[in-house]
Amino acid sequence: MDPTPAPTTALRDSWIANAAAWTTAVRTQAIASRRLATDAAIVEAVLARRPSRALDVGCGEGWFARALSPHGIAVTGVDGSPPLIEAARAAGPGTFEVMTYDELARDGRRAGTGFDVAIANFALLSENDGRLLWSLRAALAPDGALIIQTVHPVSVGGPYREGWRTEDFRGFGDSTQPWAPMPWYFRTVGSWLALLRDAGYALADLSEPVHPETGAPLSLLMIAKLT
Amino acid sequence: MDPTPAPTTALRDSWIANAAAWTTAVRTQAIASRRLATDAAIVEAVLARRPSRALDVGCGEGWFARALSPHGIAVTGVDGSPPLIEAARAAGPGTFEVMTYDELARDGRRAGTGFDVAIANFALLSENDGRLLWSLRAALAPDGALIIQTVHPVSVGGPYREGWRTEDFRGFGDSTQPWAPMPWYFRTVGSWLALLRDAGYALADLSEPVHPETGAPLSLLMIAKLT
Repeated sequence: MDPTPAPTTALRDSWIANAAAWTTAVRTQAIASRRLATDAAIVEAVLARRPSRALDVGCGEGWFARALSPHGIAVTGVDGSPPLIEAARAAGPGTFEVMTYDELARDGRRAGTGFDVAIANFALLSENDGRLLWSLRAALAPDGALIIQTVHPVSVGGPYREGWRTEDFRGFGDSTQPWAPMPWYFRTVGSWLALLRDAGYALADLSEPVHPETGAPLSLLMIAKLT
Repeated sequence: MDPTPAPTTALRDSWIANAAAWTTAVRTQAIASRRLATDAAIVEAVLARRPSRALDVGCGEGWFARALSPHGIAVTGVDGSPPLIEAARAAGPGTFEVMTYDELARDGRRAGTGFDVAIANFALLSENDGRLLWSLRAALAPDGALIIQTVHPVSVGGPYREGWRTEDFRGFGDSTQPWAPMPWYFRTVGSWLALLRDAGYALADLSEPVHPETGAPLSLLMIAKLT
């Protein structure tokens, strides 16, 4: 019996198909919300905890490891997309490893243990993220923190209820590169908090970075501790 | 030194000036969001805890006591508006008492102790609600719960940041009665959660009742336990 829903497989595949387009989008700062607010918000949230070791789950092409490394933080980045890990390794400091969320969910220690922070920056996109988060408890130091940043549920349209949606990346500017559609699992604020609780975490802090001009909330930034 | 900000005084005064218009609005079910979703949501949330005794903070004209009483729940309602308490007493079962939030904040046991639930249904509207919530800990039984329903921060326009605003009640339909403007303190999701944490509560559950037709989130419904 395969515990992985079909959209989760398609989700993983999209990050292989879109690896080049994604790497270009991140490295040219093509995503306005990241440039204007959310990149700085997650960096600040992590630095405020003064970690020595960080696990970046769904690290993509590795920008976050490059942002943290100058602060003396040893970053391990894992991602299920081999071409993104290849791009991360080529670009800079950090330890990067190809690892699917299913593999991490089966053994949360697979990428190491004793991390001061585990980070998922716009990287929890599946219905079965709960299994992953539960397993990641084993990767954290006892006083470690899970730091999640995700799209603010009100910043996207559509019905306000949990469920699979499809991202076509049209909002990412006029990239000349084609994008494969990405299935992703929409969660409300309430369902994010329930996800954390059910995976064995207590919410320590929640902030909502806003667009500096419009004032619209862009992301949810949650800091959670082990319970 | 007066710890009460000027808008809080104006807020209390508005509930005296608007008592008749408010009583009519509630009793004729003129507020669509309440009729369609939020009344049922708070009643269900309270009944699910099977309380024997409930404290309704900011009870207004008493509809909630009337909704809970048939279920064998003894409800004490308190409100700072004498004409609203008068209307509550005239309408039905429950114990109602004129009591300002400042009075409750100074002594949380003033309305009684050992309550299984303390409820604030669209009744936390001031910058200094934290003092009130902190004091209300003394009114709750050790395993009691604080249940707050409030306007969903995304269901109202304006900048997404904490601060005083003014409600003109224009959205309440074509009431023929004049309304006094009401100052109220807007909170983001993050500031609601920080308010609870700083007042000595842990969030146990958060749900977001939606409009049954549009699917738009109408309210935040938070259940919190003593820490």
